[in-house]
Amino acid sequence: MNNQKLFLSEYAIIEFLQKQNKTLSKGDIGIGDDAAVVDIPEGKLVVTTDSLVENVHFKTSWVTPEFLGRKAALTNISDISAMGATPLYALISLIFPKIYFSESFIRSLYKGFKKEFHPLGVSIIGGNISKGESLSVTITVIGRSDNKPLTRTGARVGDLICVTGTLGKAKEELDALMSGRKKKWTLLPPNRLSFAQKLAERQLATSCIDVSDGLSIDLHRLIKASNVGAEIQALARGPLANIDLTLYGGEEYELLFTIPKDRIDECKALSRIEKTPVSIIGEVVDRNNVTLIMKNGKRVLLKPKGWDHASPSTL
Amino acid sequence: MNNQKLFLSEYAIIEFLQKQNKTLSKGDIGIGDDAAVVDIPEGKLVVTTDSLVENVHFKTSWVTPEFLGRKAALTNISDISAMGATPLYALISLIFPKIYFSESFIRSLYKGFKKEFHPLGVSIIGGNISKGESLSVTITVIGRSDNKPLTRTGARVGDLICVTGTLGKAKEELDALMSGRKKKWTLLPPNRLSFAQKLAERQLATSCIDVSDGLSIDLHRLIKASNVGAEIQALARGPLANIDLTLYGGEEYELLFTIPKDRIDECKALSRIEKTPVSIIGEVVDRNNVTLIMKNGKRVLLKPKGWDHASPSTL
Repeated sequence: MNNQKLFLSEYAIIEFLQKQNKTLSKGDIGIGDDAAVVDIPEGKLVVTTDSLVENVHFKTSWVTPEFLGRKAALTNISDISAMGATPLYALISLIFPKIYFSESFIRSLYKGFKKEFHPLGVSIIGGNISKGESLSVTITVIGRSDNKPLTRTGARVGDLICVTGTLGKAKEELDALMSGRKKKWTLLPPNRLSFAQKLAERQLATSCIDVSDGLSIDLHRLIKASNVGAEIQALARGPLANIDLTLYGGEEYELLFTIPKDRIDECKALSRIEKTPVSIIGEVVDRNNVTLIMKNGKRVLLKPKGWDHASPSTL
Repeated sequence: MNNQKLFLSEYAIIEFLQKQNKTLSKGDIGIGDDAAVVDIPEGKLVVTTDSLVENVHFKTSWVTPEFLGRKAALTNISDISAMGATPLYALISLIFPKIYFSESFIRSLYKGFKKEFHPLGVSIIGGNISKGESLSVTITVIGRSDNKPLTRTGARVGDLICVTGTLGKAKEELDALMSGRKKKWTLLPPNRLSFAQKLAERQLATSCIDVSDGLSIDLHRLIKASNVGAEIQALARGPLANIDLTLYGGEEYELLFTIPKDRIDECKALSRIEKTPVSIIGEVVDRNNVTLIMKNGKRVLLKPKGWDHASPSTL
């Protein structure tokens, strides 16, 4: 990353941060007081938080600060999307060691945050900066839910299981980075916000989750919450073509959702209008497990494993 | 800290966390989905975030996990108090290395969070857990403001400058811990929530800030935001008796606020009712600086320095 010898005090950083957001309404209080104060319409508040941690989620050599900012913003947006909600405000907590403590580093990081947040109307209203032994970016996003939120709990036997986009690419890139075949991260989480909001608005999806830790574990989470099972199909083409990359690769941030069979045409129409590719990968069944039907017709019971950010494998 | 060899997966931790909060209303969605969904009344949302980082804010030998949880909860409550608002929800992001990754560590930490949050009606609605090279606790608290929030911007020339409690104790303990004269942290941030809410409700205070980085720097922040100056008095007794500990010691979390002279009796009455000690330490003046009148009558211009959590002094 870009390091400069120009060190900043917290005071100077706050002054810089205060200039970052011009999108707040009159009367709102942004960065610079003890807490931010913003207007909120009555209703359901949707809140999520996620961290990117150096040497756990990324190596600093893989990213520019701007890329890291964009990635951190998009992973949080993904959780709000998975609920079919609308993101409104973000708070950003940075922890980093002295070597990254330069004005250009912070400017670059914020350029990344703003590049993703501002087009979606998300205001950065607060945060915290602290020294620490390694770099981490923790974002909390606060949003609003105008519709019944999409949750993991509504899948019903007979529903079709769908995913947006293509799975496996994130794992493929991660493997290349880990082995040194590739030097820089290039893939960013997709923005599925508008598509997910329409899924919620039209009450099309019976359940939804974003694939953050791998298809297998996230599908297990969904069926467990819904108290059902799943049968998915590996085909020569489509999102399950490369089964190893697909099942256990994290950080895809595509949407995994269920749709009643009689509404699949509406879903296909929405996919065209929103320019969001959707594939049907299987069906909800009444056994509490996940079966994969291989290309050769063989049936395999999947385990609920995936990329577990929290398990102490390396640190 | 208490380390055990019982390691947990993120999945197991989420199941534990889901059992932590029984205070959510029916229809709300807590920990376990992509985002939390909670009811919020129309009005002003008050939001703050703060981190405690190992080897920056504390050493792990100084604290039990429960103490750390209580301290992290109270420092965030303090920011909501300083706005005269009501805290409602908390999201907790933990980063920690393998050695702390035990069920007893997490249980203890959560015992601490709940000990402070639950009596105030604050529900823990979400969070994130990640591995990392050092321990940090980042909390975001979301609250509601029923009254005009207390901010840093309203101090007027002639107002009296007041503080709650006694200043200097936190710095005194920190010095003892750093020098090894003391082994364990015992001081917790005071809970000034109810007093601050009354200050806001009765529109008594014209401005307010919590003393998190030291009286000198926080008073400078307040006068800068209000575009005024301050004159404070060192007396033999009272919160400014030990001037070195008081001016530049961080982590006091007492309230520093300004009151119009003709309302000081109302403030004194509130202080008695709320059992919150309040001292008058000076007066708002029209020069844009802070003057300290020493016990011997000498006048000293203070510098806006304090404990800067973010400056790269040691890491």
